[in-house]
Amino acid sequence: MADLATTPPLTRASVIEAHKLVKPHVHLTPVMTNRTLSELASTPRAASALAGTRWAGGTPARPVMRLWFKCENLQRVGAFKARGAFHAVERLKMEPGWLEGGGREKGVVTHSSGNHAQALALAASESGIKAHIVMPSNAIPQKIAATKGYGANVVHSGSTSVEREAVAAKVIAETGARLVPPYDHPDIMLGQGTMGLELQQQVVHLMTVGDGNGQQPRFRAAATGRDNAGPGRPGSAKAEPGLDAVMTPCGGGGMLSGVALSCEGTGIRVFGAEPSFQGADDGKRGYEAGVRVPAVSTLTVADGLRTPVGIHPWSVIYERRLVSGMFSVTEDEIRDAMRLVLERFKMVVEPSGCVPLAVALFDEDFRSMVEREAGEDGWDLGLVFSGGNVGADAIGRLFAQ
Amino acid sequence: MADLATTPPLTRASVIEAHKLVKPHVHLTPVMTNRTLSELASTPRAASALAGTRWAGGTPARPVMRLWFKCENLQRVGAFKARGAFHAVERLKMEPGWLEGGGREKGVVTHSSGNHAQALALAASESGIKAHIVMPSNAIPQKIAATKGYGANVVHSGSTSVEREAVAAKVIAETGARLVPPYDHPDIMLGQGTMGLELQQQVVHLMTVGDGNGQQPRFRAAATGRDNAGPGRPGSAKAEPGLDAVMTPCGGGGMLSGVALSCEGTGIRVFGAEPSFQGADDGKRGYEAGVRVPAVSTLTVADGLRTPVGIHPWSVIYERRLVSGMFSVTEDEIRDAMRLVLERFKMVVEPSGCVPLAVALFDEDFRSMVEREAGEDGWDLGLVFSGGNVGADAIGRLFAQ
Repeated sequence: MADLATTPPLTRASVIEAHKLVKPHVHLTPVMTNRTLSELASTPRAASALAGTRWAGGTPARPVMRLWFKCENLQRVGAFKARGAFHAVERLKMEPGWLEGGGREKGVVTHSSGNHAQALALAASESGIKAHIVMPSNAIPQKIAATKGYGANVVHSGSTSVEREAVAAKVIAETGARLVPPYDHPDIMLGQGTMGLELQQQVVHLMTVGDGNGQQPRFRAAATGRDNAGPGRPGSAKAEPGLDAVMTPCGGGGMLSGVALSCEGTGIRVFGAEPSFQGADDGKRGYEAGVRVPAVSTLTVADGLRTPVGIHPWSVIYERRLVSGMFSVTEDEIRDAMRLVLERFKMVVEPSGCVPLAVALFDEDFRSMVEREAGEDGWDLGLVFSGGNVGADAIGRLFAQ
Repeated sequence: MADLATTPPLTRASVIEAHKLVKPHVHLTPVMTNRTLSELASTPRAASALAGTRWAGGTPARPVMRLWFKCENLQRVGAFKARGAFHAVERLKMEPGWLEGGGREKGVVTHSSGNHAQALALAASESGIKAHIVMPSNAIPQKIAATKGYGANVVHSGSTSVEREAVAAKVIAETGARLVPPYDHPDIMLGQGTMGLELQQQVVHLMTVGDGNGQQPRFRAAATGRDNAGPGRPGSAKAEPGLDAVMTPCGGGGMLSGVALSCEGTGIRVFGAEPSFQGADDGKRGYEAGVRVPAVSTLTVADGLRTPVGIHPWSVIYERRLVSGMFSVTEDEIRDAMRLVLERFKMVVEPSGCVPLAVALFDEDFRSMVEREAGEDGWDLGLVFSGGNVGADAIGRLFAQ
């Protein structure tokens, strides 16, 4: 990882610079809309659906939301993680003396076993840099094979984080490799934030021009580009086309903080979405208590979101208040959202990537806020489908009856 | 169904007219590309993969294919069937005397229980026409609920086709409703053919302009719009941008014949793809024997393709030779293609819709033909993802281990 002393300031301008660096390496993923999901989000929940929740007996909220989905499940390696990894590698190459000191041969190392591992393997490989990926010996064989497929040196370890970090430290001692953490570093945050920039620009483009490939211009009309036939509901009559708000999943907070930076000064509000299972809502709890929760132990189905928010992301999310609120949903709500995405949107999005949609559909706190803030006009709300790495057999297990 | 005496001639011009009628009612579904799948299709199969097939011991073909997917899984009601149903209803409304004779109240009827049933229910409902849908009492409850959700009158019957036709005849006798068959009628064929027109135009647009939403112009470069980063393989150096060939699934043949009509005179070759299980390849067998196979009994996993090719489609497919060839694949090949679509394309496509991709990836007869005809330049090949109506639990059952 590039030395912290050399990282750019955490600003929107730095996200724009990061975008120039990663753009040649990552996909401009499409932004899609879906009338069914926008209509569902804009329909008050049945009072009976609130039974047994903390909103039981209350009046269901009546928000209006036009949803815009940023499809990072179609990103390289199947997840937004490619952005941070490519940015980290490009920044490392720019660090004075690193390449000259044999950086390519020394390589990079990480002890993530998820999407970040494959993303780093890919990014390093395309720059001819060695990548050492520490993975537990009991990791899924396909994941090990995929990581090797990107040319990485897979180093086996025990499965606890202590064991994995020890093996990574050993690799660093032996090779001089540089550690590239999955989220707690400015270069990673700025890289992930590039997705927020694209989302903002694409929504304006789709609202005003359309794409000539199925999406009609929709400014002042319902945001139903992908599903655009039939009578549209009237859209918001705002002065300028564009998003009102964005919500991203929040695990370590790299993406959420990066997207928040990409929105700074634009007037677009940013929210984070977490699972609540076994305390996975550390971001929300920390945000409300005013202090970061440093550790989490959860087996939420949203397996990309099992980590606590990192120190650098926290500084953006909470200390600088660039995130306006945090929300959390149950395991059942995440699965229900994923089922809707599969069956109505016809898209494969991993459970972690369905968490923001679950908040928009099921969280009455979020929904009341939208109703209160936006009234009849409603919001154009960007939701990030952060990744699509879930196998056909895993889908089977998730929805087995 | 409009009287046969009033249907337009089966020509490309009639498909263009049909498009004007259905365009306000159906989605212009997107055309997408995927580098992984194009590369897989363009990689010779391992000799070991041919063991146990009729190509065992042969030299694997070396075709080059740039694949363009027409995403009718994102069509209204989740399948291309919306096109034929809307066209049939619009044509019926134009039939002299039908509306004046109380057509709206008499309504339409069909005894399909698949995508056509929901498509007809929707199309009728949007014109304020009654729809009677004959469905077996043991049909999946969600399908019955969905059909009722489109405002249709669901009439229960036994599950054999004889029982269903008897109930439909009774409905007609009692109500004066007009039968709208799922495929064996010129209006249905012309309606489905509108998808072929769009596909042709969209590919030219994407090759030359891109869509500003993730797809770069790709003419003379690899057809990797959706997956467009990294070094591209050189594209074909042809004189004009556009497709070389299209392949669609073939059940009753409504879509295949309609798409063939949409390509007549364009130089684009058209192929049909079928399952081979339990004789579901009636189209291929008939095409090779020179005589239509009138009946089929198969439980192929591609449940939309369990019907024999109809008389009207056959006249276009075989008698007029507007289809250049028919190919078939095994159940395992269909499942393998569907798994790739889920895991690599991140899209939900029902088994029937994965059959053309399975042919492109696994059928050595097709692949040798492409190699022979197109050589190094390869083909820009359109494949139709015909529908996406497969539930999360059904996906689970398909890929349970």
